Parts: sequence; C-alpha cells; structure tokens
Amino acid sequence: MAGKKVLIIYAHQEPRSFNGSLKKVAVDELHKQGCTVTVSDLYAMDFEPRATRKDITGPLSNPKFFSYGVEAYEAFKKRSLTSDILDEQKKVQEADLVIFQDKLALLSITTGGTAEMYAKTGVSGDFKYFLWPLQHGALHFCGFKVLAPQISFAPEFASEEERKAMVASWAQRLKTIWKEDPIPCTPSWYFGQ
Amino acid sequence: MAGKKVLIIYAHQEPRSFNGSLKKVAVDELHKQGCTVTVSDLYAMDFEPRATRKDITGPLSNPKFFSYGVEAYEAFKKRSLTSDILDEQKKVQEADLVIFQDKLALLSITTGGTAEMYAKTGVSGDFKYFLWPLQHGALHFCGFKVLAPQISFAPEFASEEERKAMVASWAQRLKTIWKEDPIPCTPSWYFGQ
Repeated sequence: MAGKKVLIIYAHQEPRSFNGSLKKVAVDELHKQGCTVTVSDLYAMDFEPRATRKDITGPLSNPKFFSYGVEAYEAFKKRSLTSDILDEQKKVQEADLVIFQDKLALLSITTGGTAEMYAKTGVSGDFKYFLWPLQHGALHFCGFKVLAPQISFAPEFASEEERKAMVASWAQRLKTIWKEDPIPCTPSWYFGQ
Repeated sequence: MAGKKVLIIYAHQEPRSFNGSLKKVAVDELHKQGCTVTVSDLYAMDFEPRATRKDITGPLSNPKFFSYGVEAYEAFKKRSLTSDILDEQKKVQEADLVIFQDKLALLSITTGGTAEMYAKTGVSGDFKYFLWPLQHGALHFCGFKVLAPQISFAPEFASEEERKAMVASWAQRLKTIWKEDPIPCTPSWYFGQ
C-alpha cells in the first residue's frame, strides 16, 4: 500500500540463499506498492545480540548490583543506550509493518525439517509450538498484532520448482498483506483446544 | 555422587543476584558429594553467541555459497572450529551431567513472572510451553536425557524468606539428583492431552 513503511529484519549470512530470494521478492513487491522499505541485515551489520552492560553508555544507575532491566529502562529514558540499539528502535517506531506497539508483525521463517516433521505427531512437534515464545512471548508481549507466519518448509529438500513456488506464494501473499487480519495470539491458536 | 563430572552453564551478569546464589549452592553441594564441577560463566567469558563464518578458521569448504551447517560440520571434522567452541565442546563431552550424548541435562531457570502467570490459563501460558524449544528442540534433539526443570518463579517479587526457601529446595534436590529419572521428553509432557 503506497506510503506505508515496512521494516524487514533479515538474518541470513548468504545473499544467494533461499532466504535471500524471499527477502528480495518482498523488497521488490513492497516497492512496487509504493512502500518505503528498510532492511536491517543483522549479519551484515554484525548486530550485537547480547544484552549486556555495554548497551548502556555513561554511568550506571546502580553500579553495585547490575540489573539489566533496571539499567536499560533508565538508559532508555536518558537516551543513553548505545547507538546501534537507538537506531533499531527508531526503525521499529517508524514502521507500519513490524513495529513496536499496536501495529503489525509477521514472521517469515524457513525450516530445516519438512512439513511432516513439524506436524503435531511429527518428530519436531507442531511448528506452532516453537512460534509460541517468539510470537506470543516476544511480539504479542510487546504489543504487536501478529499476522499469520509465512513458513517455507525445508527448501533444502525441495526441488527448484517447489522453491520457486514458495517464493512466488510469498510474493503473492504480500500483494494483499494490508487486508489481512491478525491471528488471535492466544494459547488455543498454538496448542489447540 | 563422588567422581561424577558436572558442567554448569551459567548466564547471569550479577554475581550477587539470586541466580548467583543458585549457582553457588549447586557448586557447594556437588563439591560436597565429591563431584568435579566446571562452571562456564558465559557473561564473564564474553562468550560469542552468534553462529557466523568467524567460527571457522582456515579456508571454507565452499566460499562461493556460505552454509553454516556445512562449514561447521567440515570444520568440526578437521578440528578447525575456533578455540572457544572447541573448549566448550570438550567440557560437554567430559561431563556426566549436562553432556552431549545420552547423558543428563537439567535447566535451572528463574522467571520474571509468577507461577500464576505461567499457569495454563495465565497471561504467559504454561511454563512448559517455553521449555519446548529448549528442552525438546535443542537438548533432546542433541541426545540429552532431560531431567525435570528447576523453575524458581519470580524471585524479584518473593520475600527474602521465600527466596531462601527456593535456594534451599534446589540444594536439597541436588542431594539426590543422581537417582532421578529423566522426563518423557514428548509433546504430551509439554502440552497435555
């Protein structure tokens, strides 16, 4: 949809990978719609995933007993978090899709295992089980409305044709992404009745 | 049990924290039993959590298309993984408790939320839900036999006395830890019927 801002948080090390293709079609399709698209390419940025006291610049609020939650909250108020965190927070705040509060988020994931392995009775259990901590524990907790995930199962074991079909179905879905309703992010969505 | 080797993988930044106390009683109790105890203090070690091409020393097996799984497997065979990874692999291989294959593992976790919040009908859902990717997806998948988790709920909101009781119950459990049977690490343990 023209004018919308989309942030893609991308985490794969090989640009020529299947994940790279999924990212590319998303950028292309959303550009075609007139969206502004920002990509946070975490590996290319060498993004620091550890939450440590190095995230706080300047003096600690309680240097005798380090609590990450307390210090990060104080530093957030004083804007004394490190610049890599401030930069990402700004991107999230500005985005309409993938955004911090009361906006939309969508997980696009590729798996190693096949769809059968991620069935309720498969060796890996229902794929929704591993989405729970991410979609519910992190995204829903932070106030996101969560769109249905886009799961591309086992591209490694798929034929070239199947892979192209997966990429195409992702591009197709993005055409009408702005009309989708969020999922009900409740235990029953994840774990059945 | 005398002679057993135990590896404690410890991830907390403040030694004077409740987590620090839990680690300390575990080291003390296991030493008392005559165990050899090794602690991997991940924050103190500044342990690198990112899985990147920096983990592989020497030339890549396929520099034109980087696949972490392929490269790590080849590097493992050639022993050309970085030394911090080799060191941790060695500790895991040598341990009887927390060990790589067909041995025992136990998650000792403190939560921010209370036990009520982590009930099936609580805002965070059953605490077993967030254990699934860790205990089943990671530990069980790697061949661990998984002991019941030790969950210390919301020490931040507990009284000093309640906290001491939690630490004491952890120390008490460790006295007979070697007699425990692993849990059945299956979907029904996590998600009920």
